[in-house]
Amino acid sequence: MSSPLTGPVQIIGTGLIGTSIGLACRRAGLEVLLTDASEDHVRTASGLGAGRPAAPGDRAQLVVVAVPPDHLGEEITRALAGTDAVVTDVGSVKSPPLEAVAGLPGAERYVGGHPMAGSEHSGPLAASAALFDGRPWAITPHEGADPTAVALVEALAALCGAVPVRLTPEEHDQAVARTSHLPHLLAALAAGALADAPAEHLALSGQGVRDVTRVAAGDPVLYGQIVAANAGAVGELLAQLRDRLDGAIAALDGGDRGALEDLLRLGVAGTQAIPGKHGGPVRPTGAVFVGVPDHPGELARLFADAGEIGVNIEDVRIDHDPGRPVGLVELTVEEGLADHLLSSLESRGWVTHR
Amino acid sequence: MSSPLTGPVQIIGTGLIGTSIGLACRRAGLEVLLTDASEDHVRTASGLGAGRPAAPGDRAQLVVVAVPPDHLGEEITRALAGTDAVVTDVGSVKSPPLEAVAGLPGAERYVGGHPMAGSEHSGPLAASAALFDGRPWAITPHEGADPTAVALVEALAALCGAVPVRLTPEEHDQAVARTSHLPHLLAALAAGALADAPAEHLALSGQGVRDVTRVAAGDPVLYGQIVAANAGAVGELLAQLRDRLDGAIAALDGGDRGALEDLLRLGVAGTQAIPGKHGGPVRPTGAVFVGVPDHPGELARLFADAGEIGVNIEDVRIDHDPGRPVGLVELTVEEGLADHLLSSLESRGWVTHR
Repeated sequence: MSSPLTGPVQIIGTGLIGTSIGLACRRAGLEVLLTDASEDHVRTASGLGAGRPAAPGDRAQLVVVAVPPDHLGEEITRALAGTDAVVTDVGSVKSPPLEAVAGLPGAERYVGGHPMAGSEHSGPLAASAALFDGRPWAITPHEGADPTAVALVEALAALCGAVPVRLTPEEHDQAVARTSHLPHLLAALAAGALADAPAEHLALSGQGVRDVTRVAAGDPVLYGQIVAANAGAVGELLAQLRDRLDGAIAALDGGDRGALEDLLRLGVAGTQAIPGKHGGPVRPTGAVFVGVPDHPGELARLFADAGEIGVNIEDVRIDHDPGRPVGLVELTVEEGLADHLLSSLESRGWVTHR
Repeated sequence: MSSPLTGPVQIIGTGLIGTSIGLACRRAGLEVLLTDASEDHVRTASGLGAGRPAAPGDRAQLVVVAVPPDHLGEEITRALAGTDAVVTDVGSVKSPPLEAVAGLPGAERYVGGHPMAGSEHSGPLAASAALFDGRPWAITPHEGADPTAVALVEALAALCGAVPVRLTPEEHDQAVARTSHLPHLLAALAAGALADAPAEHLALSGQGVRDVTRVAAGDPVLYGQIVAANAGAVGELLAQLRDRLDGAIAALDGGDRGALEDLLRLGVAGTQAIPGKHGGPVRPTGAVFVGVPDHPGELARLFADAGEIGVNIEDVRIDHDPGRPVGLVELTVEEGLADHLLSSLESRGWVTHR
């Protein structure tokens, strides 16, 4: 069961992802060599304990390329040419770097990867060895990839606490087009419709629109690179989407309620297709709403009570209420336990409803 | 400061919203008369303490019509003709019921309303007097509405604990087209693209796509009614949206990175336009991530520690991690307190990062 990954691991690009990988490798006792176009970033990452600056003559077992999408191809190519190490990357789109590498000497040493982790923050200061805990990490070997190289990259994902998910590069790009890039573009379109709305209209914003638009707050330059790099797969989905949008417009125009409901039903089916917590099928859950005064300690008291009641909280949502010093907290629990939680909380004096 | 609302209040339609209004009115000591096409619903609502079944000869001060969108116009018309009470409704769209009422004798007694509250659940059993606590409640008087009728409906919203927001019916419908109906349709489109995706692709689903698509799980028949009732305002936004989508497709096709970034930047601006917690401007917040074992009591321990540290938690998100018995909990706090919370939690043995 000993890992084939013994180091050193060289990390090119010490942003959020690169530095976090460095921290995870150091936690496991591996030697880590750091490189970045910004010396400041290398110094910061090194100071955080993510490794030491790479020096001439260093020889890595594994090179991790963690630079923005626009620079992946050239950095992977350079790493393959300049070392005899296995080379992986953490880019959000897997076909373009592969195209850059195809046919090059050493291409069998390249295995793509994509940890499904991130944060609204960026840069080495936001890094953490725990960033990948329990997250999927796509491993996308091309046809000519050396199996020992694939095993080494899977060992890196495991060492970082992630769950390796093996896909071909093409499958990966189609998957993230659906699960990440299309939702991001639609969130941006929904948010864009709010940009010029009068403030008194936006006063009616509820939790729904906040959820739909949240990811649209991400860096437009980075997401522009990501979406552009996956133009093929995203473009196919957008074409399908335009057809469905045209259908919705026609249904609304012509009062065709059946067509409108079909579109909404397809959406319901889609929400049910997303895997549940811990990757398993979605278990039926119930919600209990609790009114909680908006000052320190009240949430603690609520969770202490829920803990004593012995019901595991699957999810928590705090409602952002306009104009009131009381928050509404939604506790999601296993369906069969919701009534028990509700009555037990009420007996402890909480104002609750389902 | 005494309320002009003295009752009785008649509620037509004892679903989630109607029954919740009944409970809030009873809590304030008002007499409540209940009517519903389903006698079961009336019996349930009455049994929950939301009022008593209406009887011949009852005379209400205020009638609240809380039936599905398709039946609003006829029920409001019937209430105006059959009583001399003030009549309001709680429909999600305000222009169509107004059209049904315009020119009728007694139209001055009709004042539209729309509490921005709800739940994935429906029916009287899901009702609560606390449902409206701190939520916006749109009050939408038409030009000929009697000011004392408007004051009475605002008194109802206040009695329910909501924050009255006065808008014209047209403004209201434009506002919810942007803040509710368009986001719902886009969520349904994003979710619809997942409906036929292979399971191994959906394994890459992260928190982003879950957030974007969550509202799309709502009842397709009810949302079909709501969106169809606001076809004018929603249609205008969809036309604008199609233009922007065409722009995105062209930008992706032609490699026009600037146009793609402009679209994403408009989305960022939209997320910043949504008012913050308690209706005020968005305050800068910071996030602290904490690894929490997935069994009862652990969240309680975390919140107890956060409470003792004295930092107010603004928001909580629990990450649904595939394949791991550890959840990642994101605590949102005031920006300047995040570092303090992080170091204090670490000193108590929690694994954290920003």
